[in-house]
Amino acid sequence: MTSRHRCFASDNNAGACPEVLAAVAAANPGHVPAYGSDDATDHLQSLVRAEFGPQAEAFPVLNGTGGNVVALAAICRAWDAVICTDLAHVNTDEGGAPEAIAGLKLVTVPAPDGKLTPALVETQAWGFDDLNRARPVVVSLTESTEMGTVYSPAEIRVLADQAHALGMRLHVDGARLANAAAALGVSLAEITSLAGADIVTFGGTKNGGIVAEAVITFDPELADAVRRLRKTFGQLSSKMRFISAQLTALLTDGVWHRNAAQANAMATRLEAAVREVPGVTICRPVQANGVFAILPPAATAWLQARHRFYTWNQATGEVRWMCSWDTSPEDVDSFVADVARAVSGGRAGR
Amino acid sequence: MTSRHRCFASDNNAGACPEVLAAVAAANPGHVPAYGSDDATDHLQSLVRAEFGPQAEAFPVLNGTGGNVVALAAICRAWDAVICTDLAHVNTDEGGAPEAIAGLKLVTVPAPDGKLTPALVETQAWGFDDLNRARPVVVSLTESTEMGTVYSPAEIRVLADQAHALGMRLHVDGARLANAAAALGVSLAEITSLAGADIVTFGGTKNGGIVAEAVITFDPELADAVRRLRKTFGQLSSKMRFISAQLTALLTDGVWHRNAAQANAMATRLEAAVREVPGVTICRPVQANGVFAILPPAATAWLQARHRFYTWNQATGEVRWMCSWDTSPEDVDSFVADVARAVSGGRAGR
Amino acid sequence: MTSRHRCFASDNNAGACPEVLAAVAAANPGHVPAYGSDDATDHLQSLVRAEFGPQAEAFPVLNGTGGNVVALAAICRAWDAVICTDLAHVNTDEGGAPEAIAGLKLVTVPAPDGKLTPALVETQAWGFDDLNRARPVVVSLTESTEMGTVYSPAEIRVLADQAHALGMRLHVDGARLANAAAALGVSLAEITSLAGADIVTFGGTKNGGIVAEAVITFDPELADAVRRLRKTFGQLSSKMRFISAQLTALLTDGVWHRNAAQANAMATRLEAAVREVPGVTICRPVQANGVFAILPPAATAWLQARHRFYTWNQATGEVRWMCSWDTSPEDVDSFVADVARAVSGGRAGR
Amino acid sequence: MTSRHRCFASDNNAGACPEVLAAVAAANPGHVPAYGSDDATDHLQSLVRAEFGPQAEAFPVLNGTGGNVVALAAICRAWDAVICTDLAHVNTDEGGAPEAIAGLKLVTVPAPDGKLTPALVETQAWGFDDLNRARPVVVSLTESTEMGTVYSPAEIRVLADQAHALGMRLHVDGARLANAAAALGVSLAEITSLAGADIVTFGGTKNGGIVAEAVITFDPELADAVRRLRKTFGQLSSKMRFISAQLTALLTDGVWHRNAAQANAMATRLEAAVREVPGVTICRPVQANGVFAILPPAATAWLQARHRFYTWNQATGEVRWMCSWDTSPEDVDSFVADVARAVSGGRAGR
Repeated sequence: MTSRHRCFASDNNAGACPEVLAAVAAANPGHVPAYGSDDATDHLQSLVRAEFGPQAEAFPVLNGTGGNVVALAAICRAWDAVICTDLAHVNTDEGGAPEAIAGLKLVTVPAPDGKLTPALVETQAWGFDDLNRARPVVVSLTESTEMGTVYSPAEIRVLADQAHALGMRLHVDGARLANAAAALGVSLAEITSLAGADIVTFGGTKNGGIVAEAVITFDPELADAVRRLRKTFGQLSSKMRFISAQLTALLTDGVWHRNAAQANAMATRLEAAVREVPGVTICRPVQANGVFAILPPAATAWLQARHRFYTWNQATGEVRWMCSWDTSPEDVDSFVADVARAVSGGRAGR
Repeated sequence: MTSRHRCFASDNNAGACPEVLAAVAAANPGHVPAYGSDDATDHLQSLVRAEFGPQAEAFPVLNGTGGNVVALAAICRAWDAVICTDLAHVNTDEGGAPEAIAGLKLVTVPAPDGKLTPALVETQAWGFDDLNRARPVVVSLTESTEMGTVYSPAEIRVLADQAHALGMRLHVDGARLANAAAALGVSLAEITSLAGADIVTFGGTKNGGIVAEAVITFDPELADAVRRLRKTFGQLSSKMRFISAQLTALLTDGVWHRNAAQANAMATRLEAAVREVPGVTICRPVQANGVFAILPPAATAWLQARHRFYTWNQATGEVRWMCSWDTSPEDVDSFVADVARAVSGGRAGR
Repeated sequence: MTSRHRCFASDNNAGACPEVLAAVAAANPGHVPAYGSDDATDHLQSLVRAEFGPQAEAFPVLNGTGGNVVALAAICRAWDAVICTDLAHVNTDEGGAPEAIAGLKLVTVPAPDGKLTPALVETQAWGFDDLNRARPVVVSLTESTEMGTVYSPAEIRVLADQAHALGMRLHVDGARLANAAAALGVSLAEITSLAGADIVTFGGTKNGGIVAEAVITFDPELADAVRRLRKTFGQLSSKMRFISAQLTALLTDGVWHRNAAQANAMATRLEAAVREVPGVTICRPVQANGVFAILPPAATAWLQARHRFYTWNQATGEVRWMCSWDTSPEDVDSFVADVARAVSGGRAGR
Repeated sequence: MTSRHRCFASDNNAGACPEVLAAVAAANPGHVPAYGSDDATDHLQSLVRAEFGPQAEAFPVLNGTGGNVVALAAICRAWDAVICTDLAHVNTDEGGAPEAIAGLKLVTVPAPDGKLTPALVETQAWGFDDLNRARPVVVSLTESTEMGTVYSPAEIRVLADQAHALGMRLHVDGARLANAAAALGVSLAEITSLAGADIVTFGGTKNGGIVAEAVITFDPELADAVRRLRKTFGQLSSKMRFISAQLTALLTDGVWHRNAAQANAMATRLEAAVREVPGVTICRPVQANGVFAILPPAATAWLQARHRFYTWNQATGEVRWMCSWDTSPEDVDSFVADVARAVSGGRAGR
């Protein structure tokens, strides 16, 4: 195993796809205005409108945490709260950024497979006039979820309708939106704007970018807030042409779909193969590019000494294997072979 | 004038230098751990230690605003304040980020040429035990300044000594640190670590990068805080190898110096030439890569219709011309010719 | 029912006890320094040291929310988190204040009776070095709890020891600390300083005060932070003598204990009596001054039309009846008679 | 000098007036709903509407800092800024609360006598569409000012009109609003609602209260925000009847006016008398209840050893003498005699 060995730790361990690298180089010559008043960003806007609908407006930002905080803070005042799952990335993996940067209160519901349902939302969507309670004003879901599952367009629609009926907004954390769309065989719009979402954090970094995230709004009022917050929350790139060019590359000629579909296909291949390995349990539906499994502890330890990946739950020993845009069938097969060795005890002989 | 015409609006209107682009491409192959546990970031650390001293630690961040907020918040608790000039970028051009993200109070002093002095600092460095007053705990200076001036190493040392004697820290906003070092003919360390600074926001973006900023600490306690805050304030890049690679390219073989020296030399050339143009007043010492001037209003208007640059002070009409790493002598000469036409009235004939 | 009828809605619906009113009047004559440099506050300090130990320092604040935020923020930096139950007042009833004022992240654990246990804490007390996770640095428990239960000194000690072993602190939200101490038959110190707590929010308002809360620290480092934060978070009273005088009145001659014991005794009386009423279920152990019960919905509605009290859980219909320092046996007996009428159907005849 | 000697340090060194103490006692009997749903608060609302106009709504809060932060944050989003003088209490004496609690950016203008003018406001009221600049959305003035001066109704009207023409709001920090109204011989409305103010922090504490502040809104949208923020920012009193009762006492039968007029008259008496003392310079117009003066340093030192008062400006030696609702002519005369002794050198003989 060399240090640049393709692994299953995370899709953010991969590099950028060739189209992104080429776009960065192509964006380079000459001087253009800073902060987004440039042709590359204009071009991105037209692609975003084509993809997400005429009301869509894209605001490139610098990372997913920043994008989520900007998107949620655009909706919330100081006394408001966000309903999300207890497994949501905003709750578990952003170093407390929503609270620290924006003073956002997250109100969480337990969701074993990472998915909200109307019934779960209902447990927190109350007390709008109770001064002692932070007022829930936005439901935030992750598509695809942190647990490798996917919301169908209809599932998002019902959550959007519920939110709107209660005077709330729907936010989609789309760090892996492309994986969900590719897995569902739908457009990016069908699981966002067309399903009733009000605002999206669209992730291009894991999809093959370098630094390539954007907040996408479907409402001028939110757009005004995002425009301001992006600067105030430290998410406005001065040389924005380079961020816009990356997003443009992903949204051109279906690159986003190709990259996502490859990652998804490899997860499917991985799941299918490890299901044949005795002693490995697949824990959750494999619907996008992640596989969650439980192995005997000694097998996990042996495998982690050879391949980088995360133990997702220390208590249960559940591990996560993520596939990337550049994961190859050979990568999967070779990894599965080691999984088999790990659980078979054949590892001792290595 | 084409849209990618090299202009004098800002050094962030320029693209990236070839070494940076090449480094990004070279960093791309294979998988590496996210968030900075990668070889490129390790290599950056060794370069930073070589440049700034063995106690230096670099934390790549995503933009200058983010870097400044992380650096200042590493020092401040909720009740603390930052002393800076009223012209400081953190005060005027960061959309209120220090206050909004980190709750920082900025205590400003007037400083016509953008430079702090011990006497200016003294006007605010008091009341450390007064509960009603936000407690000043850090002095923040910008090197080179927002007004194109430069602090000498001795001037920084005296500010550092004053700060330390009062139990405060010294922060250097080094968005254009390279320009200052090149202008002074000193190392980056001589105006930071060796001059007594405790923490630096080091800017690579304007120096020829894409997204290339870092907070550099000279104290393990501050390093611990920065390590945490970078994530919590939305400044931690997942694919950090690409940020580190850019900074590495700038710190290798003197690229930072070459780029900065070119920008500075072009500002000097521009200043010298426009001093010969009757009707143009150079307002401030030209010590780095910016030239501030006052022209007759009609001349400014005519010139701005042909070249992008900012009116810095609406009241006085003072304009700012910034030179970049890629500004050429021809760019300067051509621009100066237009300045001359603008003020001569010859503009009417165009 | 007149509008000033003594009810079971909350112990903050009661007025102040005579000793508190007298103390306010006695504190009034003449001029004294503002912000706590007065004799009344000095006297309070000596009482607090006598009660909580020589290392204790009291910082009177303006309400419980403010006290909790000041206490927790004294411990936390921007990247830190607080472990508490999902029913904790700081989580459910402070309008999102910890997040909004101080950027605090609350990490909650489910706790049906409102009590933390080491096992519950352990589910969140991990990942101290994981940058992506807000770092837990303080465990916050409420004594007596929001659900009317009480931690024994030994239970607090084990939580304190666990916290300290992990490098964390223990905070006690003591809005009803007096009720817990009286119920347990222990001193205030035995469930705070002597049990290992690092910082306490001590509530005097519900105990018979007007505006009478204090943060009490047992550590000089936390005291320094609280001293600053109290001002910066808007919790420093200018005419502090009046707040200190109230707290002093409660801590003199056992007034706190008398008031708390009366409220507790009335809750015990209420519980005993309603246990005899068919159709009423007592839901939780009655250990302090609150009784939680479930009645048939129609009975609850009929009763709430005659007596103010809260439905605590809309889903289950569980109601809360709180007793106050001034609740009398007659109040209880009269209320119980109405409870009996409510569930018997005799209500129809009224 | 005894410790409760009436002094000239600050009007918050005084106790409460008899009507306030009586109102607190009268509010005490029985149980009433918490958090403002009580008769005393209803009664306050009717008095406030009578005093400030039918659109006025009062929100009692717990101190002036809290009131100011709530009022300003009701107007501002994260990207917004407040224009005020560099001497404004919110800028200099609130421990950084506006920034720390609410992330507010204060944009200050120099104002020697503590008063804003349209020309001063204009220096900062620009760049509303500039993303890099925190957007000014509210002008905050203090009436009477921190320097003892007073805005006339016409001066406030012109600032309100300017603010509104630019899409901004006008906030009045009225910690000493009563003193201004009494000095001007106008109603409280004439310098707030009738002069175009949108929101006021009304101070009752210095006017003879214990804890008696309120945010008063003249606009339902701001009222909605204040209602929420008061809780979220830790400024909502549970036993609010006691706060409301104090404010009611001050607004009944002209108590506020009597108390303020007495303080003002004593300041006028003090000024007149010390103007006769050689070696004392009155520095500013004495228009409310404060007198600012410069004495020889040795005289100041001698006097401060005998009387508590503040040196307002360490650089110039300017001192502040504040009169209170309970300052008597004898207090003034006795103090002036000591001032005369201090500067005459007669002090040596004491």
